[in-house]
Amino acid sequence: MVKTNPGRFFEDYHVGQVIAHAVPRTLSGGERALYHALYPARHAVYSSDAFAQSCGLPGAPMDDLIAFHTVFGKTVPDISLNAIANLGYAEGRWHRPVWPGDTLRSESEVIGLKENSNGKSGVVWVRTRGLNQRGELVMDYVRWVMVRKRDAAAPAPETVVPALADSVAPRDLVLPEGLDFTRYDFTLAGEPHRWGDYAVGEVIDHVDRVTVEEAEHMLATRLWQNTSKVHFDATLREDGRRLIYGGHVISLARTLSFNGLANAQMIVGLNAGAHANPCFAGDTVSAWSEVLDKAETAAPGVGALRLRLVAVKPGAVPGALRGEDGKYRGDVLLDLDYWALIPL
Amino acid sequence: MVKTNPGRFFEDYHVGQVIAHAVPRTLSGGERALYHALYPARHAVYSSDAFAQSCGLPGAPMDDLIAFHTVFGKTVPDISLNAIANLGYAEGRWHRPVWPGDTLRSESEVIGLKENSNGKSGVVWVRTRGLNQRGELVMDYVRWVMVRKRDAAAPAPETVVPALADSVAPRDLVLPEGLDFTRYDFTLAGEPHRWGDYAVGEVIDHVDRVTVEEAEHMLATRLWQNTSKVHFDATLREDGRRLIYGGHVISLARTLSFNGLANAQMIVGLNAGAHANPCFAGDTVSAWSEVLDKAETAAPGVGALRLRLVAVKPGAVPGALRGEDGKYRGDVLLDLDYWALIPL
Amino acid sequence: MVKTNPGRFFEDYHVGQVIAHAVPRTLSGGERALYHALYPARHAVYSSDAFAQSCGLPGAPMDDLIAFHTVFGKTVPDISLNAIANLGYAEGRWHRPVWPGDTLRSESEVIGLKENSNGKSGVVWVRTRGLNQRGELVMDYVRWVMVRKRDAAAPAPETVVPALADSVAPRDLVLPEGLDFTRYDFTLAGEPHRWGDYAVGEVIDHVDRVTVEEAEHMLATRLWQNTSKVHFDATLREDGRRLIYGGHVISLARTLSFNGLANAQMIVGLNAGAHANPCFAGDTVSAWSEVLDKAETAAPGVGALRLRLVAVKPGAVPGALRGEDGKYRGDVLLDLDYWALIPL
Repeated sequence: MVKTNPGRFFEDYHVGQVIAHAVPRTLSGGERALYHALYPARHAVYSSDAFAQSCGLPGAPMDDLIAFHTVFGKTVPDISLNAIANLGYAEGRWHRPVWPGDTLRSESEVIGLKENSNGKSGVVWVRTRGLNQRGELVMDYVRWVMVRKRDAAAPAPETVVPALADSVAPRDLVLPEGLDFTRYDFTLAGEPHRWGDYAVGEVIDHVDRVTVEEAEHMLATRLWQNTSKVHFDATLREDGRRLIYGGHVISLARTLSFNGLANAQMIVGLNAGAHANPCFAGDTVSAWSEVLDKAETAAPGVGALRLRLVAVKPGAVPGALRGEDGKYRGDVLLDLDYWALIPL
Repeated sequence: MVKTNPGRFFEDYHVGQVIAHAVPRTLSGGERALYHALYPARHAVYSSDAFAQSCGLPGAPMDDLIAFHTVFGKTVPDISLNAIANLGYAEGRWHRPVWPGDTLRSESEVIGLKENSNGKSGVVWVRTRGLNQRGELVMDYVRWVMVRKRDAAAPAPETVVPALADSVAPRDLVLPEGLDFTRYDFTLAGEPHRWGDYAVGEVIDHVDRVTVEEAEHMLATRLWQNTSKVHFDATLREDGRRLIYGGHVISLARTLSFNGLANAQMIVGLNAGAHANPCFAGDTVSAWSEVLDKAETAAPGVGALRLRLVAVKPGAVPGALRGEDGKYRGDVLLDLDYWALIPL
Repeated sequence: MVKTNPGRFFEDYHVGQVIAHAVPRTLSGGERALYHALYPARHAVYSSDAFAQSCGLPGAPMDDLIAFHTVFGKTVPDISLNAIANLGYAEGRWHRPVWPGDTLRSESEVIGLKENSNGKSGVVWVRTRGLNQRGELVMDYVRWVMVRKRDAAAPAPETVVPALADSVAPRDLVLPEGLDFTRYDFTLAGEPHRWGDYAVGEVIDHVDRVTVEEAEHMLATRLWQNTSKVHFDATLREDGRRLIYGGHVISLARTLSFNGLANAQMIVGLNAGAHANPCFAGDTVSAWSEVLDKAETAAPGVGALRLRLVAVKPGAVPGALRGEDGKYRGDVLLDLDYWALIPL
């Protein structure tokens, strides 16, 4: 009997299947410190217990993307070990904060299947749920990936393409219990800009840049127990470079966006996302954002901004996303569409 | 008076001497998070408080090799600062888990001495004990190293070669208090294979590979307060590479072995070990295991596997350890013989 | 409205101005573990709760330089984003330990201004205070930097050059509450040398060397939320190297000084400091110290040493600081003058 995990192939999925992912993970101040060493993270709610308490929370939660990466990482051995491409995200919501000491696990339900016309691969849609040690929902999101078939001769499954929302409706965003921005300290947070200062259509150049090293992205990717070989094995490519986990670029861009969006404190919705081009060690990454929408919320003093976050390489122009052919420009690494909470 | 530590030379050891090693160390969730960032660690007992509790433990202990590296690191200034080679390990046992907040210190007793025929160096055997803040034994092991003489003219000591067991007898393994695998969740642990699924002689190729960077092995080696110069100083070799701490390769191989041995949760015995060839940054490391023996234990649902864990470089063939000359193949980095606990 | 922080220019400062710096930070065992991975830190008071308790403290405080880097990092967006050079430090004191779970914030008061004769820049002196979550003073120090003018035509401010002490007087050093070295365990601390064993004028070569990698200094600099672009962006220099944060060199040198100054446990005063030459990845750093002064203290068994700590590159001679021209030698990276507490 072969003991190692060969991963699932396209034929191994069926609509309605629920996969419980392995290796629950307890998160603590250690993971938080590493997150702050790996990324230029400075959003005050996640940096300071005292600041979070002034916002009605019991203390600083784990960064919202720590929760995402941990939940995502657990799905890799079951969903994307034989994936050709990570195609998109939708309907992502953070349902409750993760606190130091919490233990996360993940499960995914297959909600769509579509074989490609070449008969060699297909697209699998899954809704992934992250649960804490009490079985409470921490976050969920839909993700779809292109997966190899084990056997090209295997019959195609019935095509099921799930109907997915273009974005999470503001009324569906879940606000952390107790969150209150009415006594928000803009000086300690780092910038004076509040919800009313941002206009739909506004583009913000986040200015700062970070050049990525192999050791850094591997430390990050391992921390989330993401086992995808392409991130770790230099022998897979002739140039010896390892493909950087797309989530590493997400966290780089999000934390760089502090400079201009310091008050967009908590991510509560993930509307869409595309890894437009691959990222490698040696690349210098910067970011720009576009305000896509605005909404009020039921929490005191709390508004929501819908933001497009774009990670780019040198030479990029803030606001320039696609070429004349409608395709992503070559200098675009990431196009992420999310909701964040910001003081009114 | 010279203030810095020149290290001990062969003449400075005598049989029966007990050396208390310096700098006790408190371990916490920070060290655990770093371990998970530095290595692809996924064994569930060490990853999740909730999983560990389902196995009868009060929470997730610190990884067994965190305990080993911490205890070992303390011995370096006294034992191996002037060592030419780390020759072997024997009779290693983990006596109780290390919990976050515990403080470890080490002491070593010299149990053997043998001057080499060239008169310039000799072999020193020590039994090292790791103790927690209550003075309780956490682990112990025998290690022998070749150490330079300060003065080749110094007389040779009486030769004492300790009688060492080929392996720790199963009845001598110490099981963590309360450990109970009868409600073990194989799905959450990541693989279905139990004690009965492994056969003596079976070879498992762990498939995954990791390419090592200088920053990574130096972070790890410093974390264990191992001060051996060769791991940090690029000016010691013409090619500027730093020799990687052998323990880094041990942890890489052990964590890579998750893929095929996910349920070999806890290491409780170290029978033997050899660092067959040096490892450098840029090397791509993979691993294979061979099942050497099996034993039952007194704990409910808990069996033990004796495993040979071999770290190798590209080109290696799983199962191929030595050449026709009886020497380790050039692609073998580590040959480690240990006992692990696995559900029946 | 431009949302990103352009930093302050020379015209934006006036004497008496108090700047509250952004993003308070909660520190925990995670930051401590990272400090021990990034630097060869071994001073026992910071490594072991049990050892710290034997010295009259409730547990191991966060390393004194973790406090310094955290307090310093917060000042960067307001003080040194447009700085041309970091010119000096004076009158630094640690007022109370930082404990895991404490939250630090910083504020700076402008205490001096002097426009340069070229009219393009000026020197700004600030006294920076680090405060914990109870508003208690954790540390303070004076720092002066050369800052660009936004507009060369802007009028020069009145010159105010603050009178600064050459060094902190021993009677002004603040001792951690409860500190008692009368039961100090020299074996566990790692060296036998006490206060009386050090003579003014003595030079100690700390022997060990560390070669620095890009990933390491960026992890460290981000951990302290220092956002200065030059440390992260490889496109700023033709050779692709990033300038290493001067504080990284301070921590490297201080931790290397364990070998010869293992008992100089706690830093309580920062008298002066100069970053003599830039440091880059690939540099191999070593350190030497000179004993500048000695003092007794009011705490039982506790003496103080005033030490010059010098970080150097290969080829340096311990004790050789300046050339015949009175300038720092090219192999000197750092010249730091501080007070540390050591058992009598």
